[in-house]
Amino acid sequence: MARLMPVPDDLAPVQTVLAGAMQRVEAEVARALASDLPPVSRLAEHVGRYHGKMVRPMLVALFGLARGGQPGGGQLGGGQAAVPLEVSGGLVTLGAVVEMVHLATLVHDDVLDEADERRRTVTVNRLVGNEAAVMLGDYLFSAAYRLCGELGDPHATVRIGQTGMTLCAGELLQLHNRGNFSLDEATYFTLVDRKTASLISVSCELGALAGGASPAQVAAAARFGSLVGAAFQVQDDLLDLAGDQGVVGKTLGKDAEKGKLTLPVIHHLASASAEARVRTLALLSATARAEHGDRRELAALLASTGSIEYAQGRARGMVAEATAQLDAFPDGPARRMLSTLAAAVVERGF
Amino acid sequence: MARLMPVPDDLAPVQTVLAGAMQRVEAEVARALASDLPPVSRLAEHVGRYHGKMVRPMLVALFGLARGGQPGGGQLGGGQAAVPLEVSGGLVTLGAVVEMVHLATLVHDDVLDEADERRRTVTVNRLVGNEAAVMLGDYLFSAAYRLCGELGDPHATVRIGQTGMTLCAGELLQLHNRGNFSLDEATYFTLVDRKTASLISVSCELGALAGGASPAQVAAAARFGSLVGAAFQVQDDLLDLAGDQGVVGKTLGKDAEKGKLTLPVIHHLASASAEARVRTLALLSATARAEHGDRRELAALLASTGSIEYAQGRARGMVAEATAQLDAFPDGPARRMLSTLAAAVVERGF
Repeated sequence: MARLMPVPDDLAPVQTVLAGAMQRVEAEVARALASDLPPVSRLAEHVGRYHGKMVRPMLVALFGLARGGQPGGGQLGGGQAAVPLEVSGGLVTLGAVVEMVHLATLVHDDVLDEADERRRTVTVNRLVGNEAAVMLGDYLFSAAYRLCGELGDPHATVRIGQTGMTLCAGELLQLHNRGNFSLDEATYFTLVDRKTASLISVSCELGALAGGASPAQVAAAARFGSLVGAAFQVQDDLLDLAGDQGVVGKTLGKDAEKGKLTLPVIHHLASASAEARVRTLALLSATARAEHGDRRELAALLASTGSIEYAQGRARGMVAEATAQLDAFPDGPARRMLSTLAAAVVERGF
Repeated sequence: MARLMPVPDDLAPVQTVLAGAMQRVEAEVARALASDLPPVSRLAEHVGRYHGKMVRPMLVALFGLARGGQPGGGQLGGGQAAVPLEVSGGLVTLGAVVEMVHLATLVHDDVLDEADERRRTVTVNRLVGNEAAVMLGDYLFSAAYRLCGELGDPHATVRIGQTGMTLCAGELLQLHNRGNFSLDEATYFTLVDRKTASLISVSCELGALAGGASPAQVAAAARFGSLVGAAFQVQDDLLDLAGDQGVVGKTLGKDAEKGKLTLPVIHHLASASAEARVRTLALLSATARAEHGDRRELAALLASTGSIEYAQGRARGMVAEATAQLDAFPDGPARRMLSTLAAAVVERGF
């Protein structure tokens, strides 16, 4: 994301450093997935095309640099001083680990969602079938944990393993609530915290830890990640309803088709008139066979109760709360980049 | 397996110790899978019914005890001395880790095989659908790696992660060769080494390491596991063709239905007359819709080229070679139990 988004001049150096670090993460992922078996290495290479904004490894790197070290700002220096920044090998490896866990979940999510396209390329399930996609996801998970073991830090292995459990538990809770049109907001956020925010949060937490942050800073980093992750999911919900398939590069409107209630829909159902509610429920039930026009009608109904604005407001509020967490860290390019990145979550159309 | 099989009197004490250790492994697995979310904990409890012979944790425990410690036989003592044996907490945890990886592969295998029944209980995919079964498998993998991290031994994490990759790569190679009726024996054994033998082998290896074995002993343990694992798979192939569903407790004849060539079939196709070969290929192609009678005809064709005996001979040969590896360890109940266990692999009808 940072590589693509416009940043103030003083952040250009840190953006360049990040871009270089993300190339190293990509290379480390490719190395970690290599296989002597051609049918396996071909699939591993295909998954290399799924790297997108690389938010998680970027957060690892930025929190690894954010502490600012000794009083006075440490190696990052202040403002435009342009002291050479360096992302350590350990942060790159940690970034590769969280990226690989993310890639594994994408491969399995595409099986669950019966998706045909991901980041403008064909999905693994579409390419070689659901069975190979299930196995490839397992291969990615295993490769992530192997690489995590190579860090030689059992605490990181425990935290990544716990996070894997948390995000699967979140997905299972979501599957359990499929078609539950009375899902409440609290359960929705439990779901989101687990399935989406947990991996983003642990990326921030472990990055901060690796950068030598204090316990209070590590807690602030984890909280930043939870909030940004939840805001990210709410924005995803909004894009699923209103986004442009050409921009996002994935099949749209899948949430409603899969019986997943999103935040705007939950708010709408709780605040709509009885008549509108009946119409919305009928639309949601029918969406499995819906045409583009039906989704437009759904969007119009949601707009009538201000539910789109409500969800946008919640996402912005969480980003503001996340940004406040950054006060635990000294001012500097890494912290300012984190702030810019958090803001971009609710501004993105992608 | 050891809990059920008849053993010589002098092995009764080690069998009792093992049975106790396996109960601790089951309890540790249950603890490691517990969740605060009822839909998740219900599924985790269901998977608790999948514990079968617990071959992998048993191998961890036995190789952990097999070194015999100091000259003179160590804590195990010799023969019927009945010195108290103890399986350490570390061996129990390691056993729980390999058992959980195994359970994860079972849950995903059942999705791939569209199986309805496992160990006389309904499969997760049948119970809650393929999507939840995929996620539950991921949950099990993650729980295994988290528990492995808690051992505080990065080498174990790396080896378990590598093994996870190896077994998934084996499954991917098998899927790639589905319906390949010219699969040769070498590729078959590459497949088997990866998808089946690798986890059994690493169980022996890490058990021996944890028990303080020498590098030569660790290598012998790993080789024992590879050979026993391959023999185990060949025996599974034989049971798939000839076994009794009531005894094995899983759907039979799935290999042929899924276009998987097994060792007896590979041998048969390489040695049958042109006429028999044509008939066999026709049978294999038709097996997707086959009735029980067709599988009987296939078994008869295989018998005509001595292919059943050939596969049985290969399995017995591997077990003999495995048993020879045990010479690296001092004589004692653990080593004798390993020998008994290896022999049971090719004698089992289950």
